[in-house]
Amino acid sequence: MSKIAVFDSGVGGLTVLRALRKKWPGENFLYLADTARLPYGNKSLGTIQKYVDQNIRFLETYSPKAIVVACNSASTALLNTTKKYNLPVFNVIEPGARQAVAKSENGRIGVLATRTTVHSEAYPKAIRKLKPETEIFQQACPLWVPLVEEGWIEDPVTNLIVYRYASRIFQQNVDTVVLGCTHFPVLIPAILKAVQYPVHLIDSSLGLIEDLAAIDPNTAPSGGRLDILSTDFSPRLEETIRLLLGEPFDSLELVDLKDS
Amino acid sequence: MSKIAVFDSGVGGLTVLRALRKKWPGENFLYLADTARLPYGNKSLGTIQKYVDQNIRFLETYSPKAIVVACNSASTALLNTTKKYNLPVFNVIEPGARQAVAKSENGRIGVLATRTTVHSEAYPKAIRKLKPETEIFQQACPLWVPLVEEGWIEDPVTNLIVYRYASRIFQQNVDTVVLGCTHFPVLIPAILKAVQYPVHLIDSSLGLIEDLAAIDPNTAPSGGRLDILSTDFSPRLEETIRLLLGEPFDSLELVDLKDS
Repeated sequence: MSKIAVFDSGVGGLTVLRALRKKWPGENFLYLADTARLPYGNKSLGTIQKYVDQNIRFLETYSPKAIVVACNSASTALLNTTKKYNLPVFNVIEPGARQAVAKSENGRIGVLATRTTVHSEAYPKAIRKLKPETEIFQQACPLWVPLVEEGWIEDPVTNLIVYRYASRIFQQNVDTVVLGCTHFPVLIPAILKAVQYPVHLIDSSLGLIEDLAAIDPNTAPSGGRLDILSTDFSPRLEETIRLLLGEPFDSLELVDLKDS
Repeated sequence: MSKIAVFDSGVGGLTVLRALRKKWPGENFLYLADTARLPYGNKSLGTIQKYVDQNIRFLETYSPKAIVVACNSASTALLNTTKKYNLPVFNVIEPGARQAVAKSENGRIGVLATRTTVHSEAYPKAIRKLKPETEIFQQACPLWVPLVEEGWIEDPVTNLIVYRYASRIFQQNVDTVVLGCTHFPVLIPAILKAVQYPVHLIDSSLGLIEDLAAIDPNTAPSGGRLDILSTDFSPRLEETIRLLLGEPFDSLELVDLKDS
């Protein structure tokens, strides 16, 4: 059965999967959540590269037609590796950078991301490759992922914490901001409260959909399966999946990567 | 060289190590931070058991006279395993439970911990073993570890988040509260702001020191070494170690557990 494999360190990549399923409801998807080792965002690039390589090798055994790395920290690791794979592997950094450059009019772009993604300079490098004169302002937001995982989405405390980090970017008069972590799209209402002027918020899913068209996803209007694999079962896993995915899935299975 | 090995999923166990070093400044300590896989607190018991077993096997190769599991989630996993080890392994749950029972006068004890420690019922089991009629009120506080790791210790946002979780426990009129995560002692000032009456806050280190006396630590007044091993180097690791340890250390080395 033809399918597209998607993976993330945890549940954040479900915001990307949701966009892909909305675009191609007839396509089959296999989603791997590496919850035993999450989060990736505060770990070193070398460690993340090791995890990403193990995840890709594992997903290859399911023979998908492509693999989507639906995690910015993992995409950063992928863009910095020399490893080659036998099937197309897509990342979320390059499409996000491309969309940001296309939208920005004043050439000032902000990046909100995890600490590892910020330190790696993955977005500045990808953006400057497309438009070298762009001015880029990055901000690491380490508490946002735990807040989303805790389900505090519409909450005064979340608004405060989002404001504290995001306002530093908006003080730089950026007209476009990349949401450089797949957990962040659910915080868009809180982010918009921290800005006093119109701004483009870039969610990587849109650009990723353009890239994925190259592998001819199934364009049937319905009927696609969604199977989820997880490297751990935490007490609230199913609940968080339902919150971020917003639709039913066909199966949820525990897997051990060392068996791959 | 004789030494005591201490490990945690990350830097939280340094609050325990600090207390042990203060008590026995002449003893040598080896600290392992399993930062490549942190945090343990939101993972399943089975996954944590696997990590704990790997960490103990790895530390055994350094021939310490004892191993201290300075992490509540890891201690919970240890108390639920049937695995046997060749040297004494100490946990932080039993001494914490013992101190709480000794301090409580009204028989109402609160437990603030990570989600995994709360779900495991490790503290209620350990407390009821000592005093079956105790009334126990648990509260999972998933955001506290990220807040401490971010260094937001004296901060209005931290006070708000600490209050939101801790006040649920204090509404139950508990007179004693176990700090069931090694990160939490640094939040004591914020926790005390959430309570309107006198309360005993139990930090496991005190009871652990009583237990460790059994292995005759070096009682020299100074001269002990502290060597730190970490399974990953994140950008802020050294900074966070200095914050929580509050004193210098002799070495910091990156290790890969799969080589053990």
